[in-house]
Amino acid sequence: MKATAPKKIGVLTGGGDAPGLNAVIRAIVKAATGRYGWEVVGIEEGFEGLLHESPIRRLTPDDVRGLLPRGGSILGCTNKGHFGIQTSDGRIIKDESAFSEAMRRFNELDLDAMVVVGGEGSLRIAWELYRMGMPIVGVPKTIDNDIAETDLTFGFYTALQFATEAIDRLHTTAESHNRVIVVEVMGRHTGWIALESGIAGGADVILIPEVPFYLGKAAAKVMERDARGCRFSIIVVAEGAAASGGAEVYLEAGGMDRPARLGGIGEIVASNITRLTGKETRVVVLGHLQRGGSPTALDRTLASCYGTAAITAIAEGKFGHMVAYRNREIGTVEIELAVSRLKVVPANSYLIGVARDLGISLAGEQD
Amino acid sequence: MKATAPKKIGVLTGGGDAPGLNAVIRAIVKAATGRYGWEVVGIEEGFEGLLHESPIRRLTPDDVRGLLPRGGSILGCTNKGHFGIQTSDGRIIKDESAFSEAMRRFNELDLDAMVVVGGEGSLRIAWELYRMGMPIVGVPKTIDNDIAETDLTFGFYTALQFATEAIDRLHTTAESHNRVIVVEVMGRHTGWIALESGIAGGADVILIPEVPFYLGKAAAKVMERDARGCRFSIIVVAEGAAASGGAEVYLEAGGMDRPARLGGIGEIVASNITRLTGKETRVVVLGHLQRGGSPTALDRTLASCYGTAAITAIAEGKFGHMVAYRNREIGTVEIELAVSRLKVVPANSYLIGVARDLGISLAGEQD
Amino acid sequence: MKATAPKKIGVLTGGGDAPGLNAVIRAIVKAATGRYGWEVVGIEEGFEGLLHESPIRRLTPDDVRGLLPRGGSILGCTNKGHFGIQTSDGRIIKDESAFSEAMRRFNELDLDAMVVVGGEGSLRIAWELYRMGMPIVGVPKTIDNDIAETDLTFGFYTALQFATEAIDRLHTTAESHNRVIVVEVMGRHTGWIALESGIAGGADVILIPEVPFYLGKAAAKVMERDARGCRFSIIVVAEGAAASGGAEVYLEAGGMDRPARLGGIGEIVASNITRLTGKETRVVVLGHLQRGGSPTALDRTLASCYGTAAITAIAEGKFGHMVAYRNREIGTVEIELAVSRLKVVPANSYLIGVARDLGISLAGEQD
Amino acid sequence: MKATAPKKIGVLTGGGDAPGLNAVIRAIVKAATGRYGWEVVGIEEGFEGLLHESPIRRLTPDDVRGLLPRGGSILGCTNKGHFGIQTSDGRIIKDESAFSEAMRRFNELDLDAMVVVGGEGSLRIAWELYRMGMPIVGVPKTIDNDIAETDLTFGFYTALQFATEAIDRLHTTAESHNRVIVVEVMGRHTGWIALESGIAGGADVILIPEVPFYLGKAAAKVMERDARGCRFSIIVVAEGAAASGGAEVYLEAGGMDRPARLGGIGEIVASNITRLTGKETRVVVLGHLQRGGSPTALDRTLASCYGTAAITAIAEGKFGHMVAYRNREIGTVEIELAVSRLKVVPANSYLIGVARDLGISLAGEQD
Repeated sequence: MKATAPKKIGVLTGGGDAPGLNAVIRAIVKAATGRYGWEVVGIEEGFEGLLHESPIRRLTPDDVRGLLPRGGSILGCTNKGHFGIQTSDGRIIKDESAFSEAMRRFNELDLDAMVVVGGEGSLRIAWELYRMGMPIVGVPKTIDNDIAETDLTFGFYTALQFATEAIDRLHTTAESHNRVIVVEVMGRHTGWIALESGIAGGADVILIPEVPFYLGKAAAKVMERDARGCRFSIIVVAEGAAASGGAEVYLEAGGMDRPARLGGIGEIVASNITRLTGKETRVVVLGHLQRGGSPTALDRTLASCYGTAAITAIAEGKFGHMVAYRNREIGTVEIELAVSRLKVVPANSYLIGVARDLGISLAGEQD
Repeated sequence: MKATAPKKIGVLTGGGDAPGLNAVIRAIVKAATGRYGWEVVGIEEGFEGLLHESPIRRLTPDDVRGLLPRGGSILGCTNKGHFGIQTSDGRIIKDESAFSEAMRRFNELDLDAMVVVGGEGSLRIAWELYRMGMPIVGVPKTIDNDIAETDLTFGFYTALQFATEAIDRLHTTAESHNRVIVVEVMGRHTGWIALESGIAGGADVILIPEVPFYLGKAAAKVMERDARGCRFSIIVVAEGAAASGGAEVYLEAGGMDRPARLGGIGEIVASNITRLTGKETRVVVLGHLQRGGSPTALDRTLASCYGTAAITAIAEGKFGHMVAYRNREIGTVEIELAVSRLKVVPANSYLIGVARDLGISLAGEQD
Repeated sequence: MKATAPKKIGVLTGGGDAPGLNAVIRAIVKAATGRYGWEVVGIEEGFEGLLHESPIRRLTPDDVRGLLPRGGSILGCTNKGHFGIQTSDGRIIKDESAFSEAMRRFNELDLDAMVVVGGEGSLRIAWELYRMGMPIVGVPKTIDNDIAETDLTFGFYTALQFATEAIDRLHTTAESHNRVIVVEVMGRHTGWIALESGIAGGADVILIPEVPFYLGKAAAKVMERDARGCRFSIIVVAEGAAASGGAEVYLEAGGMDRPARLGGIGEIVASNITRLTGKETRVVVLGHLQRGGSPTALDRTLASCYGTAAITAIAEGKFGHMVAYRNREIGTVEIELAVSRLKVVPANSYLIGVARDLGISLAGEQD
Repeated sequence: MKATAPKKIGVLTGGGDAPGLNAVIRAIVKAATGRYGWEVVGIEEGFEGLLHESPIRRLTPDDVRGLLPRGGSILGCTNKGHFGIQTSDGRIIKDESAFSEAMRRFNELDLDAMVVVGGEGSLRIAWELYRMGMPIVGVPKTIDNDIAETDLTFGFYTALQFATEAIDRLHTTAESHNRVIVVEVMGRHTGWIALESGIAGGADVILIPEVPFYLGKAAAKVMERDARGCRFSIIVVAEGAAASGGAEVYLEAGGMDRPARLGGIGEIVASNITRLTGKETRVVVLGHLQRGGSPTALDRTLASCYGTAAITAIAEGKFGHMVAYRNREIGTVEIELAVSRLKVVPANSYLIGVARDLGISLAGEQD
């Protein structure tokens, strides 16, 4: 390892919180101070902390002791988005003054580099700042597991584990009461959590954004089970899943209850399943419960790897890159590449094949 | 132990499912067959199973193997209530034909006694059937812990543990994002789960049915915390909690959002806290997640004690009684006495005192 | 509540660590500072901290934030015992100079009162210091649940829950491999953890200090199960359980393997079960795993109640007393009374009756 | 998917139990019956079940209901090894008569194919039987994660999660008492569990079979921590780790306590750390606790994928192959290739680099 001059690096955590953020911060501090003798400072409240004269905390190994099992981020997160407005097609209409102010503050703080731990939105801002001259390394963060160019993101398996245990709990109630229980899990654009927790929890129907679904097919699965004596069913639906063929299937004859009145997709699915099958249904929205808690072993290890890899990337001058886990190796990839698309569940994913082999309906064209 | 003639006893589980039901069934079968040499049969779907020619399962020790850690009830539960309609003041307007049919079926099945595991509603039916001549022993079941004449009911501590862990999870998100999170827990008439999980989870405000609350006081607590740098708050609310002083506090000036549109009390509290404090709020409704899962050690032990005690009660001819845990002893009490009132959190409960000593607001007159 | 002059109180945690210690410290600080406006200081390393010029930490509400779910004690524990030597009959041969030094330091620190959170040993020291004039209030702490004059001690249910889940895990291995698994749990003098985890975990044999056991009877239970097709068994043994009738049962014919060579009672039981039944056995010693982890909801609530009650006791001048939970109320009791005997499992405990009703063997005279 | 004639396939689970075995069986039954209309029968007690006239169970979807979250194997496991003796260099000296008998029984049962779920030993037997003409498909099973040609094996992440949580629990005790705690985890030949749980649990020293260690270096790490005020340390050691440089480091001057007397490597490490540092140490052997419990979400999904892939492999006639997970795809590989070597932690593994970046000592040459 080549000698590196002492540096002062900043770290911030942007977007929604995810289990493992603290483990990333801990690893950054341990690797930067212990291996390179650098100084680390924490910027609070994500990028917002660069816009205000908010306090900057020096982070020493003592400050990060005990952080490994703790959820959340000691630096705070935010998705207030003062840097611009994201348009419907994903581009940011930049607030130039915010970017200029962030650059000014970065220079004022006399930082040599910046680690940005964040999701797609934060990484886009990071990329812009990098192009303006800020030496930035990114660390991908998304519970949904939808960031491209990396096989895994920390937080995902913790959320998946919680969702699976929740489905376990709901199974006993569904079975004891002959009910249909609809579980709405996270996944705004992708179905990773829904698909994997549905397989792991033994769901009967899984509805994901990547496979447009027909509620009539979901109802048929419930009735088919009923007919052979399985009088309960579990339906797992990603928050971003959307029905197709609506007109024929569930807007006819009085129509479905409107989302505005009912809440999320979980409610829509449940009310229509009741309408189509006559069975009692219940909805459980896991919501923020999926974000919290102590990270699983896997997420702690992954977060630790990302934190140390970010420091290595700085030492190697790989600015504008994001650390990534691919083919069981830790490496880096250009941030721009990572934010250029979402990592969705491919139509030919083995997970979809396995789900169907297990008799789980995705309620799509092929089911 | 006096010799007892071989008997054939029935067991059913009524009302909503609760962790520990299977442990009760297991204990009943083990004690009845192992100690007395009796035969046990299971009636499915609660009292409904006595109304139809539904199949009756013989239950042997082999049938109950592995049941101890499993949630739900292998016999199924139901709260369909074909036995009558419960009026708003808690009385049942009996459907006499259902009671007669149940008596007829009981005799037809040639049963010597019946164990009814159920909540207030099921125990009321049990009491009526007992008065009509059915030799019944009750086992109290309520997650809400609100059945009188017993210090504890199984399922409560499992629900409490889940609610506490949920509050732990939400803490990290609340803290990372400077949010107010409102957690709606079970407790239709009583605040046991809300109060104990709120204390155990470190809530800032706890709203329970026994202490009518002012949303203005809850909002004041949130603002007081904000003022001293704790920019997040956790509010735990029992589903049956109700605001008092509504006119002044949250119906004025355009009024609160209406329940019909918003959903449960959690939503009402959250929307008004936002209105009164300007802070971002999120609601999490734990709902059915509290009913499921493997019972805690305490609930398994308690359920096992209740199951064996029910068999002892039958051996001793204590019909019309319910098993109960009082002053660290297992005994019995007349069913009628147990269903004559609810066990609410007393105004002078040490738990309420402790909550206030810890700085938790109940948002009531005294806070 | 009467007005109380501002006070400065000290708190220390003695003996082995237990889940809930931090919750006690948190509650003490919250109640003392929030309700009475007193100052709290923490003495580190138990009573040892009074013997050295070790640093004294002021504890503010900020210092105890986030402590509720955390195991261990931020003040450190110790059972080094510089205050004397405990004799085999439980008395302390005092080291007078240590007691004098502790009194001197207490006065030097200008403390108005002291809260001692500890087990039997620490409470005995506390009683001596109280008699020498130190205004002390005790808080009982024992995972074994063996302190008299209180129905419950925090930490017990957390240990019990862990032990029960451990037995669950071992069940699947025992069953898959047709083995006997011996689980050694805590309980030096009493069998509370063994008995309750054994019932909750579905053990087949439970060996506790209060019921001297015959290994031949334990072996007979294993063989009886084998004969009816249950080819695995789980034996739970308290670390302090002791065999009776040794000569006939397991010292004959070459004798058992000696403890000195084998380790604890778990090993002794396992090697003899193998000898007597010919079956494969495995031993698992839960050991320190039972002491750690986040306290259960019940233990957090109990610890919080104890912490606030200790402050109330100081306000009311109840020195020389220990807080206690009895008959579902929080009160106090003279420390001397509490340490005058151990709370053992009574021979007529309903738990023992329930265990036998469930077909669990205690391998004693009556089994 | 091409049509396939109705088949009758057998399934057995060999070797030690692992969380996920039941999920594999469930997936096999669901995929075989649901997708292909085949019949599945279960062979009990691993290959032993082919040697005796033991009962063969038909397995229908009803038989595998509720199996997903359950540890162990409903078919039983065994490592009795009647098929031969494994020599020290890993070859099996075959008991030819056992192999012939297994072939005879297979034909007698009129099976079209066999799925063998097992570890290295079982897969070697499977390969031999395949070469003798039995149409076999393998499913890799090892908690240690050491089977080659597959990136992952189910059970590993469940064991890892348990070990990590155990280290969490022990942290609080170590910290409260200023102790060194040595945690012995599974890993007879490889350090995957030790390395990943050590990183995830925040260990200070990790000892694995792949990196021969010097106890003097481990002791130095403990003392270095002590010197800067961290008076506790956690050492994670794989059961198969072995000290190097013994003569200089820990056999001098009276020597270390002999293994024969002390038990496993955990005891050896602990007694020598005490000798070298003078600090109090405790050993915790996780042992069989790592094998049990409900599989994590990841292990359930992986097990489900393996089960369905085995059926696909049979449909495609890929006999003599084992299903495998590589580069995020499910495929197959020749069994012979998989058992030809162990998958050890490579010297240049990113995990080893990350551990060192985090300041964890492996106590090897480079530390």
